[in-house]
Amino acid sequence: MTRGLINLILTAIVTTLAISCASTRLNNSKALVIQEQGSFAIGGTVVKSPGNFDPINHGAFNPANQASEGQTLHGDHAYVFYQVPKNPRKLPLVFWHGYGQSAKTWETTADGREGFQNIFLRRQFPVYLMDQPRRGRSGRATKSITINAAPDEQLWFSIFRMGIGTEFYPGVQFSKDPEALNQFYRHMVPNTAPYDLEVNTDAVSALFNKIGNGILVTHSHSGGQGWEAAIKNQNIRAIVAYEPGSGFVFPQGEVPDSVKYVGGILRATGVSMNDFLKLTKIPIVIYYGDYIPDTPSIYPGEEQWRAALTMAKLWRDKVNQYGGDVTLIRLPDIGLKGNTHFPMSDLNNVEVANLMSEFLKEKHLDN
Amino acid sequence: MTRGLINLILTAIVTTLAISCASTRLNNSKALVIQEQGSFAIGGTVVKSPGNFDPINHGAFNPANQASEGQTLHGDHAYVFYQVPKNPRKLPLVFWHGYGQSAKTWETTADGREGFQNIFLRRQFPVYLMDQPRRGRSGRATKSITINAAPDEQLWFSIFRMGIGTEFYPGVQFSKDPEALNQFYRHMVPNTAPYDLEVNTDAVSALFNKIGNGILVTHSHSGGQGWEAAIKNQNIRAIVAYEPGSGFVFPQGEVPDSVKYVGGILRATGVSMNDFLKLTKIPIVIYYGDYIPDTPSIYPGEEQWRAALTMAKLWRDKVNQYGGDVTLIRLPDIGLKGNTHFPMSDLNNVEVANLMSEFLKEKHLDN
Repeated sequence: MTRGLINLILTAIVTTLAISCASTRLNNSKALVIQEQGSFAIGGTVVKSPGNFDPINHGAFNPANQASEGQTLHGDHAYVFYQVPKNPRKLPLVFWHGYGQSAKTWETTADGREGFQNIFLRRQFPVYLMDQPRRGRSGRATKSITINAAPDEQLWFSIFRMGIGTEFYPGVQFSKDPEALNQFYRHMVPNTAPYDLEVNTDAVSALFNKIGNGILVTHSHSGGQGWEAAIKNQNIRAIVAYEPGSGFVFPQGEVPDSVKYVGGILRATGVSMNDFLKLTKIPIVIYYGDYIPDTPSIYPGEEQWRAALTMAKLWRDKVNQYGGDVTLIRLPDIGLKGNTHFPMSDLNNVEVANLMSEFLKEKHLDN
Repeated sequence: MTRGLINLILTAIVTTLAISCASTRLNNSKALVIQEQGSFAIGGTVVKSPGNFDPINHGAFNPANQASEGQTLHGDHAYVFYQVPKNPRKLPLVFWHGYGQSAKTWETTADGREGFQNIFLRRQFPVYLMDQPRRGRSGRATKSITINAAPDEQLWFSIFRMGIGTEFYPGVQFSKDPEALNQFYRHMVPNTAPYDLEVNTDAVSALFNKIGNGILVTHSHSGGQGWEAAIKNQNIRAIVAYEPGSGFVFPQGEVPDSVKYVGGILRATGVSMNDFLKLTKIPIVIYYGDYIPDTPSIYPGEEQWRAALTMAKLWRDKVNQYGGDVTLIRLPDIGLKGNTHFPMSDLNNVEVANLMSEFLKEKHLDN
């Protein structure tokens, strides 16, 4: 056997086996390889009616027997669905939706593309998708409510900065296929009990007690709740906040004036300096999309975000003044045009995700 | 270079690469390899308030502007989360939860084991998990409701046949870890609008129009709805019904007497012969768990299931009389003891799943 022949055989064998392995890898890189997935309830409370339950006289299903003596109600928890990819990065991403939404925010987009759930699974992050207490699959609550089926979607169309009234903004990063708007509206879910900041942040804190260190990703109404959750639980090692709308917390005595805008007023919240300083210990990035006016607009939907952005800048400056690490990015300022209030599901959401990946890399949060 | 040395090198290379490939396969057989996953809304309607929306005067978020002129409400759809494994079988499984529940029924069990979602993904079935209209993530609805936060869990403890009142049945297939019961109670979610059979079956029919042929897996309250859905849509190629509780449909003129039981009365439903005969065209299996008495009990929770089982037998016989293929199995009769109203999540749920797999194989539904 000549050395040339030996080399040829070796090359052939190595190539064959390498192709075999590579094709496995190739398929896997397309498929999602999930090491573990599941769901659970976290947090919440239990209320109990006095007395002892009578399974004979109160054991039939009818309204009179609900709330009969000696019964419990477990409510106010969060529902969480999680997926851990093979060879995961260390810090999981916890996704928290905004007002009127559920974890659907992070799943398939309204026009059928992959959302942040799949995008970040493919980037090897464990993902935790939460329905906050009293919303969606966390619907069981300790308080009652009346849900009014009120047509209100054009209101949200404007507030979600898809456009004005029923007309899309020019250049908006949202599909013009009518089915996309149909799906988008059907993402909404009602509150099944009154909103309660403490209930929500308690559940999120309980989640981080369960899973340990992680990164919180908030959207809109969960932005302000996210600051409060990070004050409650130091396992929140970083926050990525998309379009926080309210609930900015400042040290007592340093709370800025409210921001008045057409249609409302945005107030900041005072917390103890001790609590405020907790927010200076973690990297935070805030992203806002497009169509937020710099000067007062006649449209309340836009105005709400001018106020939020104004307050967010004050907040960034205050946290950084005390040694914090807050970055605020207006997507159009760095070349991403046309984003709505939902950058994570807009047509350019992979670019939006890339920015988040860069932030996590820069802050060494993606090991 | 000697031939011995060459062989040694070749063997080392081949062994190394083979181990490398094998370990990839080994991990994959444990991991879930998901070719595609996502979520969408299906079915539903749109209502619209008259007039034209005014984004200037009605564009601010406050109650007065909800239901202002010219607005829409998209509601009454179902929310569906689906996962397609690599190398999938042809017919997907569509999982439909029962009363007071969401798709959580099929996910992680209350004591943290894998539910039917993962079990049947591992068996290569595409799985579709639905929140029925007006429940969970399908919460947006065209009708209003008041949700009363009434403690009622001991009522359900009995109706779900975990035990009597607060005491577990002896030998029940449910974990005695208190956290399991805590999780179990937190699976419940309220109706976000009144129950409507037509709304629900329309959404399920729309789902089968979208996905084509598939197998419907129902539980409890969706049992009766499942028969109606199969009448509406012939893409439902088979039904696996766990503990159907009501809504049994018979040909008009052949509707059996209602079944009276302690605490209530169970009525059957009449449908046209043409519709009824559609149910004779597909294989159907019905499973009931343990603790269903053969004779009247003093406990309404048990009684409800004695009535359901009685009616289910009449229904099986009627469908089969007209050439149908309905099998009814009481799990304890074939050696599975201790099952509650939730066999799919009981401690022996792998055995319960095995029975379903055998049924699907026997009926050539698992190609």
